[in-house]
Amino acid sequence: MKKISVMVNGLPGQMAAMVARHILKDERFTLFPCSLTGPEITEKTCTVVNQTIELIRPHDRESAMEKRERPAISVDYTHPSAVNANADWYCKERLHFVMGTTGGDRKKLAESVLNSAVSAVIAPNMAKQIVAFQAMMDYAAAQFPGLFKGYALEIRESHQKGKADTSGTAKAMVTYFNRLGIPFSEDQILKERDPAAQHRRWGIPQEYLSGHGWHTYSLTSPDRTVHFEFTHNVNGREIYALGTLDAILFLHQKVILGEKGKVFSMIDVLKGV
Amino acid sequence: MKKISVMVNGLPGQMAAMVARHILKDERFTLFPCSLTGPEITEKTCTVVNQTIELIRPHDRESAMEKRERPAISVDYTHPSAVNANADWYCKERLHFVMGTTGGDRKKLAESVLNSAVSAVIAPNMAKQIVAFQAMMDYAAAQFPGLFKGYALEIRESHQKGKADTSGTAKAMVTYFNRLGIPFSEDQILKERDPAAQHRRWGIPQEYLSGHGWHTYSLTSPDRTVHFEFTHNVNGREIYALGTLDAILFLHQKVILGEKGKVFSMIDVLKGV
Repeated sequence: MKKISVMVNGLPGQMAAMVARHILKDERFTLFPCSLTGPEITEKTCTVVNQTIELIRPHDRESAMEKRERPAISVDYTHPSAVNANADWYCKERLHFVMGTTGGDRKKLAESVLNSAVSAVIAPNMAKQIVAFQAMMDYAAAQFPGLFKGYALEIRESHQKGKADTSGTAKAMVTYFNRLGIPFSEDQILKERDPAAQHRRWGIPQEYLSGHGWHTYSLTSPDRTVHFEFTHNVNGREIYALGTLDAILFLHQKVILGEKGKVFSMIDVLKGV
Repeated sequence: MKKISVMVNGLPGQMAAMVARHILKDERFTLFPCSLTGPEITEKTCTVVNQTIELIRPHDRESAMEKRERPAISVDYTHPSAVNANADWYCKERLHFVMGTTGGDRKKLAESVLNSAVSAVIAPNMAKQIVAFQAMMDYAAAQFPGLFKGYALEIRESHQKGKADTSGTAKAMVTYFNRLGIPFSEDQILKERDPAAQHRRWGIPQEYLSGHGWHTYSLTSPDRTVHFEFTHNVNGREIYALGTLDAILFLHQKVILGEKGKVFSMIDVLKGV
């Protein structure tokens, strides 16, 4: 079978670098030798394992791509500020893409694809198992509204010190629990950002203090005789890279089938792979 | 609104007694003054709060019921050995029933209802929130087969010392995890039946050592960077009594609507209440 050529944009960023390493060591793929990067990056190249990748700043992208074959799929792990401009460029250049970058104008992002000749997987969270758990909660909220009426809820999450905002996953969970009968607001989520407490109280390994996402949802019945607890703890970024590869394979299949102007979610990837 | 007359069978057993107490203190219901009991019971009556309930042995049931009005709904928390005989009697006497007793020939049980003029809620587990969690797992297994492929699974459960068999809920969960991509057999479930360990290692309160059901399912990714954990811990029997009341209300609505020869599950109750 022909290998799938994948352009990984956002090098030398950590998430892009991890995906690029996975692409390189997986025999189903080849790594496209260029990567879109930010205007502030001064390096001209970046090394992934033993391969040199040319870094392309925004104003060089037209000329850099002119002389090359097209990658089958582009993956975007750049910066929230670049999301819409990059998406528009992919659409113009007819590059089917997986958008792993969060932020930007998400409505506009989807519209760009719908009005284009490309298809895309757009997912704020590439971790398949977490996305599936969210789908389970959404299912319960739809099927069993009010199921946990009267129960007390506690949501706590821990992320690396640099993360200022509350976990997006935890915020999404709040909406499910609301529909399941529990009044709860986003600002009641307990956020941990102190590395010392993360290590001592939570037991997060030292090497992952700089990159992790731990979440626990606890439910206690009014008389305190029943206790439910759901936990999903992620150390590092491996799970997102693996989910990205699945998204690439899924999108490639759709492209082969001739899908154009379609936006797919990670739920589609989960159901389709 | 007219109160719903409920016959609670299985007194003086603990589960029947708890349901009877709930019926008595809930103004939507009245407690029927008789209860089917086992042939080995020598007492003629049983007191629930301040009400005296006549205990009826199997060979007295025809005569005992002859002279009385019928209850709207019967609830069965008797003994596995009585399940089918009781169900046949409910069908013959046109008593709509909620079967909370486990065991017996379940296929025959359902057939008895399908061929009768009564409707029934038949549920091996009356805890709504746990049944809903099983439904979520079943949904995930159907929608995302293989989701946890490669993950290591640990299932541990603790129940009171007297419970010989493995938790039925834990066994049902095994089937969902199998479909989610994890080979795992029922005999790999870790069973705790030692009260000392339950108290010391699990933290189960002293007063619930004689009646509890604690379950934890842990999933760890192949590279150990991702960890999921689902826990549902029940102390005592309150949650089952509350679910039984919901099942009674649901069944009563169905009976008013003229449903006959229908078998409902706790999932139906969850969706319908």
